[in-house]
Amino acid sequence: MEIFDKLFPPEEYARRTREVQQRMRKAGFDLIVCQDPANMCWLTGFDGWSFYVPQCVVLHVDAANPIWFGRAQDAKSARITTYLPDGDIFPFSERLVQHQVEHPYDELAQLIRDRGWGRARIGVEMDAHYYTARCHQHLVAGLPEARFDNNRDLVNWARLVKSPAELALMREAGQICTAAIERATGVMRPGVPQQDVIAAVLDTLTRGVPGAGGDYAAIVPLMPVGEGTSTPHLTWTDKPLPDNALAMLEIAGVRRRYHAPLTRTFHIGPPPQEIRDLAKIIVEGVDAGLEMARPGNTAEQVEAAWQAVLRKHGMRKDSRVGYPIGLAYPPDWGERTASLRPGDKTVLEEGMCFHIQSGLWLQDYGAAISESFVVGASGGERLCDAPRDLIVVS
Amino acid sequence: MEIFDKLFPPEEYARRTREVQQRMRKAGFDLIVCQDPANMCWLTGFDGWSFYVPQCVVLHVDAANPIWFGRAQDAKSARITTYLPDGDIFPFSERLVQHQVEHPYDELAQLIRDRGWGRARIGVEMDAHYYTARCHQHLVAGLPEARFDNNRDLVNWARLVKSPAELALMREAGQICTAAIERATGVMRPGVPQQDVIAAVLDTLTRGVPGAGGDYAAIVPLMPVGEGTSTPHLTWTDKPLPDNALAMLEIAGVRRRYHAPLTRTFHIGPPPQEIRDLAKIIVEGVDAGLEMARPGNTAEQVEAAWQAVLRKHGMRKDSRVGYPIGLAYPPDWGERTASLRPGDKTVLEEGMCFHIQSGLWLQDYGAAISESFVVGASGGERLCDAPRDLIVVS
Repeated sequence: MEIFDKLFPPEEYARRTREVQQRMRKAGFDLIVCQDPANMCWLTGFDGWSFYVPQCVVLHVDAANPIWFGRAQDAKSARITTYLPDGDIFPFSERLVQHQVEHPYDELAQLIRDRGWGRARIGVEMDAHYYTARCHQHLVAGLPEARFDNNRDLVNWARLVKSPAELALMREAGQICTAAIERATGVMRPGVPQQDVIAAVLDTLTRGVPGAGGDYAAIVPLMPVGEGTSTPHLTWTDKPLPDNALAMLEIAGVRRRYHAPLTRTFHIGPPPQEIRDLAKIIVEGVDAGLEMARPGNTAEQVEAAWQAVLRKHGMRKDSRVGYPIGLAYPPDWGERTASLRPGDKTVLEEGMCFHIQSGLWLQDYGAAISESFVVGASGGERLCDAPRDLIVVS
Repeated sequence: MEIFDKLFPPEEYARRTREVQQRMRKAGFDLIVCQDPANMCWLTGFDGWSFYVPQCVVLHVDAANPIWFGRAQDAKSARITTYLPDGDIFPFSERLVQHQVEHPYDELAQLIRDRGWGRARIGVEMDAHYYTARCHQHLVAGLPEARFDNNRDLVNWARLVKSPAELALMREAGQICTAAIERATGVMRPGVPQQDVIAAVLDTLTRGVPGAGGDYAAIVPLMPVGEGTSTPHLTWTDKPLPDNALAMLEIAGVRRRYHAPLTRTFHIGPPPQEIRDLAKIIVEGVDAGLEMARPGNTAEQVEAAWQAVLRKHGMRKDSRVGYPIGLAYPPDWGERTASLRPGDKTVLEEGMCFHIQSGLWLQDYGAAISESFVVGASGGERLCDAPRDLIVVS
């Protein structure tokens, strides 16, 4: 038995490579260096938790396939998870790991020179999470004749429209997420230690649903409680859930690195009318956004539709109301391209996927009832099927 | 009830601040910018999964406390998790999140100028995971009169010796890790879907042990199976465990962000003698390393003791055999300072904690039986108490 089923057939990776090369020609790059783990996986299938050391895929505009560059002990992972020929899997010297003076990207520069690309116009991912200031410094120093520019997330933009095979994984991810919200609803009670709720949620997210095992999410379950709901990114503590309080749970179902995130707001004990009302406003706003999310409309129009509902109720949200989702690695399941916010003129197409994050973080509390959706002919189609209201438990 | 118990009393943070300021004076820095989430937490207590956007703590050499800089919606998290005065919690404008032209660090530069530090000698963390090339570019452009240099992980080095309060958390983390290895041993069987093993492990890691709830780990459970054991960083698939195969499990018990990692090697079905022998060599090598890990000895001496055992048996390991552990956030639970490898002359002191990662990744398979330990008067004291041998399940 094979230990690993590659994620997509070779033709899918070839198609992606050619599409990215077209974008490179248009942007004027001979070579791109991709350190974003999601871009590495999308271009080659490479999968493994090795992104804490410098690694990348390098794609030349005329090459048949990308080159994988990484730590020697991870080269075998590249052999297992990708179709790349052995000659295009390039391990760097082990002694360079966390070396104080030298750096793995000294050898990357050498590799690029050896391939005859030392004078290339090179596009790097200036703001990718793991492309550190020092990675850039060593790469630039090692290629004095090359011309560097920010490739402005060129591969991330290529990922925006999902293929049918990707959408199938997104829908499975949505089913996994729905199951985990149901599990959370079953275990959240006054006095239950917070970590026991999270343990149950992680259990369901990891087991998955029949026929579709779960994968790890780019963000752990977030669960602010009480006043903590006024800020979005607190994780659990080991305190018991209070008798009467709000709690928010933000999680993603993940199927083979493809994410369907969702936020639901719970009230432990009978909720005040003000919070019931807030939940209804949020769902009304999300529905307006989903309705607007049709091919041909823009990202900012989706936000405007949402904001119009808030305005009608005398409210507003300052932060963006959503972002594209798909293949992701820690620390973020957003794709860092379009944003559902004023000024974003990205034109929606069928097969784009977004998380409409309807969170309102007010002075002393907050609430969110979000949806992951795919842009379809008649609007945003929800990937999950969790209750669309404040969830009251007691 | 308070929703969050701060991790340490204010005096502990004050002591850390003064210690870092001493190191800054010695290194010639007026100001440091710390984006490593573990450094942010260690200096202030700040905790939350917001490190996917630019954020940092800034410490001036003469200041009473650091300044927190981050996204507006996360400023409330800083108020909940730290003792910082409101005037030293500085939110950046929401519209700068993933902006294509402007950057949050434009406002960080403004803040530094406003405080009168525009001509400071500034130490930045050039190789911290989230300090991207673009963060550095905008910060440098916004402070044309400042002098920038790599602070060479100055705060990470200050974290190397753990306080008694930190060691108490490390020991609890060790107990959680031990419990999870026991749980894995109970569920690993031929035919069990891999994700069900991981779900059980995550359940135990998250619930924790009586009196000590679990926290999320900086790395998800790694579980290469079969030939996958020849490379260290593969995660689970949803294939069933084979009838007769090796599997490795690398996990960390985590207590309030403090990590005790451990790797154990399992054989499903009766193991070949060659693998039994390899396991014994590894444990003998780890014991030699632990014995050498006394105050006054160096990091490289620990590695040499381990390597001598391998050599005796006709083997060797090219990669470093260990790294310091403690407070950590994704993507890595190592502290990125000392390494147990040739040439590292770091002198061990009581209270330093390391993971001796004894993994041998051979051509077709691998094995590891690692230990997390604290340097004590008579050698490395193990933080976990899991079986020290090949674990055979069937």
